[in-house]
Amino acid sequence: MGQFERETAVEKVGANRWRGELCRGWRIGAVPNGGYVLAVVGRALAEALPHPDPLTVNAFYLAPTALGPVDCDVELLREGGNTSQASARLYQEGELKVLVTAAYTDLDRLEGPSWSAQPRPEYPAWEDCHGGNSKLEFAQRVAVRLCHGAGVFAGGQPSGGGEFRGWVAHGDGADPDPLSLLMFADAFPPPAFDVVGLVGWVPTVELTVQVRAKPAPGPLQARLFSRHLSRGVVEEDGEYWDSQGTLVAISRQTAKVRLPR
Amino acid sequence: MGQFERETAVEKVGANRWRGELCRGWRIGAVPNGGYVLAVVGRALAEALPHPDPLTVNAFYLAPTALGPVDCDVELLREGGNTSQASARLYQEGELKVLVTAAYTDLDRLEGPSWSAQPRPEYPAWEDCHGGNSKLEFAQRVAVRLCHGAGVFAGGQPSGGGEFRGWVAHGDGADPDPLSLLMFADAFPPPAFDVVGLVGWVPTVELTVQVRAKPAPGPLQARLFSRHLSRGVVEEDGEYWDSQGTLVAISRQTAKVRLPR
Repeated sequence: MGQFERETAVEKVGANRWRGELCRGWRIGAVPNGGYVLAVVGRALAEALPHPDPLTVNAFYLAPTALGPVDCDVELLREGGNTSQASARLYQEGELKVLVTAAYTDLDRLEGPSWSAQPRPEYPAWEDCHGGNSKLEFAQRVAVRLCHGAGVFAGGQPSGGGEFRGWVAHGDGADPDPLSLLMFADAFPPPAFDVVGLVGWVPTVELTVQVRAKPAPGPLQARLFSRHLSRGVVEEDGEYWDSQGTLVAISRQTAKVRLPR
Repeated sequence: MGQFERETAVEKVGANRWRGELCRGWRIGAVPNGGYVLAVVGRALAEALPHPDPLTVNAFYLAPTALGPVDCDVELLREGGNTSQASARLYQEGELKVLVTAAYTDLDRLEGPSWSAQPRPEYPAWEDCHGGNSKLEFAQRVAVRLCHGAGVFAGGQPSGGGEFRGWVAHGDGADPDPLSLLMFADAFPPPAFDVVGLVGWVPTVELTVQVRAKPAPGPLQARLFSRHLSRGVVEEDGEYWDSQGTLVAISRQTAKVRLPR
């Protein structure tokens, strides 16, 4: 069992309640990474629902989480043949911190047409990419290797493009699974850093992850980009491909860009 | 008072309950447009919350709605200085049909840096655009004028680009307000039509609208595009600018593409 699987584990402790633990190793500053927190909720949903895999998952972050136990209350909203929907609430010491709404499915059974507007972009190989922000505690668990946009972390200026490209993988070498995509969707640095510089604080308001396929083994190829920063409000859009070139997820979050005063 | 304002009106009927009516004129086939339904919920949220404007609103569509009365139950989740968050549930005849999570703010008071990766695209003027699907009942309330991608509605082939561009406005000439952006975000035809042709059914799984500014008077310039169709699952991304060139909203939905058998 890999670190991600172990540190997102949940135990059923009531009719609709699962208990988990936010573990050391995943924090950005003092706060556990929002994607990691979402994956803990996602695992409770996977256990509660008749379908095993996330299809689309939205989370509103109401209050910062902290290390320690969490309770996830799951409410089944609708159960269909191909998809089931649920709401989940993550509490710490009785305080509601994250509200999640999700549709789960069986990814192996998706059927229908496929198409992409663009081919997968070509990146330098994992072995040839090194940039990133390895000073974060989060880097103990997740390996981020940037091939575009890393200059701002090496003391350079933002490129002004608002985009990071590179690779992302479990730090312990475990292979990605669908639940881990909920975490990887929040693993890259905020693209606003590539616009306004290394401002300290880009809190997530809400995050949606759409999962499209079970990832093949190996690092994920990823890009995270912003296009519109409006008086401190920005979207962060992600695309994630597996080692076979299959698009396995896309993500979008609303974030706020807080400049130092 | 315009048609949109009148036909999304809600009345407080309980401590946390608002009643509205899904009116004729807004349907796509037999089902009221999902953006219109979201705007009714959005109005209940605006009345319930201390902040007047939607900042980001997510809706999961659990069951098709129908013409007639709706009840919206609003639960305040968190009240902050700049933003408040809530969950809302839309019921018809006791059945939960739409689950909404939202962050509301005062758009006039947003503060922070602004930036765009690209300038607003140049379109032919409103007066010079005519394409669209005017056979829908929805066209009684909302004027869609396409300048790109309309060929498939005129009996042509899909362009394969997966994108519609054009203008959108209230049919009665009323000016757009922030709540109407929740409706306009679901007003364009599914971009998948421009890939696989005019398939009959592209149901929305969930929709998120990020509002960035109060729109100036006049039609909205819009694009709705898809980039990744994965075995019948697709995202639809929207961008909306007002007549002054300000980006006023972006949107993303997860939809399913159901081809005729």
